[in-house]
Amino acid sequence: MNFSKEFTSAILIIGNEILSGRTVDKNTSFIAKWLGDLGISVEEVKIIPDKEDIIITSLSELRKKYQYVFTTGGIGPTHDDITSESVAKAFGKKYEYNKEAYAILEKYYANSDFNEGRKKMARMPEGVTLIYNEQGSAPAFYIENVFVLPGIPSYVQSMIPSLKKVLISGKKIISVSCDVKVRESSIAIELSGIQDKYLEIDIGSYPYSKEGEFGTVLVMRGIDEVEIFKCKQEIEEMISKRSSN
Amino acid sequence: MNFSKEFTSAILIIGNEILSGRTVDKNTSFIAKWLGDLGISVEEVKIIPDKEDIIITSLSELRKKYQYVFTTGGIGPTHDDITSESVAKAFGKKYEYNKEAYAILEKYYANSDFNEGRKKMARMPEGVTLIYNEQGSAPAFYIENVFVLPGIPSYVQSMIPSLKKVLISGKKIISVSCDVKVRESSIAIELSGIQDKYLEIDIGSYPYSKEGEFGTVLVMRGIDEVEIFKCKQEIEEMISKRSSN
Repeated sequence: MNFSKEFTSAILIIGNEILSGRTVDKNTSFIAKWLGDLGISVEEVKIIPDKEDIIITSLSELRKKYQYVFTTGGIGPTHDDITSESVAKAFGKKYEYNKEAYAILEKYYANSDFNEGRKKMARMPEGVTLIYNEQGSAPAFYIENVFVLPGIPSYVQSMIPSLKKVLISGKKIISVSCDVKVRESSIAIELSGIQDKYLEIDIGSYPYSKEGEFGTVLVMRGIDEVEIFKCKQEIEEMISKRSSN
Repeated sequence: MNFSKEFTSAILIIGNEILSGRTVDKNTSFIAKWLGDLGISVEEVKIIPDKEDIIITSLSELRKKYQYVFTTGGIGPTHDDITSESVAKAFGKKYEYNKEAYAILEKYYANSDFNEGRKKMARMPEGVTLIYNEQGSAPAFYIENVFVLPGIPSYVQSMIPSLKKVLISGKKIISVSCDVKVRESSIAIELSGIQDKYLEIDIGSYPYSKEGEFGTVLVMRGIDEVEIFKCKQEIEEMISKRSSN
């Protein structure tokens, strides 16, 4: 039922604040849409606590299973920021000062106190490539197929565009939607028939109610634009026949 | 570093619309906060596509690992709603009409067409207990330690309170926060010293910037209220000493 994916990825959200419910994760939505445009589909998201053994196990599993892994969170200056050290251990690499990152931070904190907490943000696994942060000070990094990003959404959004030239991208994943003003339960069988004809398109059905009126948003995803529009047309015809009955 | 958990759980979010970035998951935050009040901590969240084999594998793994598993999504009337059938397979149970659910739906759709799509919402693994939906029509259900909920946040929120009497709850997880008007990188070392003294409290540090001013929200979580307030006091003293320097 799911269309063929050229390039796959996973997102690993690291942070007690998401698991406790304090913070709603907004990074998944942003990263997934951005990757979709590059033809890289997100196949799994895992949210885990700031615990070293769990970070190591999860990362080791995901980076074997998918072409790319994106982590968010845990690269700041405080005691609960343990992602960089855990990534070093997952790769069996030294956790050390990255010279370039150290120089960036030293310059950034030139007029204040370049203390131990701030220096910690320059400690990374050996051999990483930096991902620069235009908004803030501390860079993020990547190593092999693992991209280690901060937790703050505005930082993620400012950093991620520079990765476009690093990732091998595929055919853009196209998503087209139509809002049909009927309850999904009234068209379920017809829709299922249309899905069976378009195996390379995922048709998603998302019911809603607005001011007492029920409706459904139908989303078609795939990589073949012509097929998607044929499928959309067929859905629209099905709906219009239904309404004129 | 993480406080001892009496009761643990996982949330399994089933839905292509979350993985594609189209929809931001709001259920995790609501369910996790609600469980926290019951002393049940969420240790892992996994977001997966509407694919039978992945649902079965993920569910089988999580329900062994944690005391409770909550799934969301995929129990509606359309072709992409495959959660109930997948849960039946994961438990090795028949997937059949639940008589009580069928009667509820038959009554609800009495004045319209009780078609195949609508009937599908009454198909569940054999032997489940229903979770009633006061807002809508179709009930959700639970089987052993797995609670199968809908994807629409308002439905989840209306259904979940009735589970309070079913779950074995522990000591309420208390979360206290203070907003300190300093950058987290300036207090990282002091904070780390305080964390080392309170091993049964998780201190989380979450930086923010508002109108050009940097600040940090410190969150203390644990089950011992007295310890949490001692810890909070110590943090406040550390901040006030720092400011008066």
